[in-house]
Amino acid sequence: MSEHPAASLDETVHQRHRLGILTIAAEAGQVDFGYLRRTLDMTAGNLSRHVTILEEAGLIDVEKGYEGKRPRTWITISPAGRRALAAEVAALRALVSAVERAVPGRPRTV
Amino acid sequence: MSEHPAASLDETVHQRHRLGILTIAAEAGQVDFGYLRRTLDMTAGNLSRHVTILEEAGLIDVEKGYEGKRPRTWITISPAGRRALAAEVAALRALVSAVERAVPGRPRTV
Repeated sequence: MSEHPAASLDETVHQRHRLGILTIAAEAGQVDFGYLRRTLDMTAGNLSRHVTILEEAGLIDVEKGYEGKRPRTWITISPAGRRALAAEVAALRALVSAVERAVPGRPRTV
Repeated sequence: MSEHPAASLDETVHQRHRLGILTIAAEAGQVDFGYLRRTLDMTAGNLSRHVTILEEAGLIDVEKGYEGKRPRTWITISPAGRRALAAEVAALRALVSAVERAVPGRPRTV
């Protein structure tokens, strides 16, 4: 019932590692597990755990394969993932606006 | 070492309930526990847990007292809390920019 933007943040998408994964997948289209791990500075185990949560929520698709002899895992954002990320971005913009209205002298446009 | 804005999000501030508490405290100056609970639609136990984490991190000050006969808990954002919230907002703006660059046809200004 709350109108405050903070109350509309969804934990599945907002959690900082998962938000990073979705953002980079949205930027890159399809992204390799190793690239995500390096860019987000995460361990393989921790990244794997968050990738599974996003996959089970239907927000990303995971494809395992080979590049030459090297095993690879590719991550693609799903249409539901793009919608969830867009909703998160809308909530974040509202939140940033609220903070900046509260801090005099800072720019108010978001 | 990563340059991606998602990697610079701090868990203490970014967690959605704590981000809500800090945002409302920044907006309101000083805020009552009951008001926070209603606005963020949280249970007293859950709010109490996150208030303690923020207090122990030095991001808010908590003051207990009475308004007439009613016990009240007042929460005030500290200078360190304002700095941490400003850093979070800067990271969120960068993140929102990255997402919007990735989605053609959406506004690019943040």
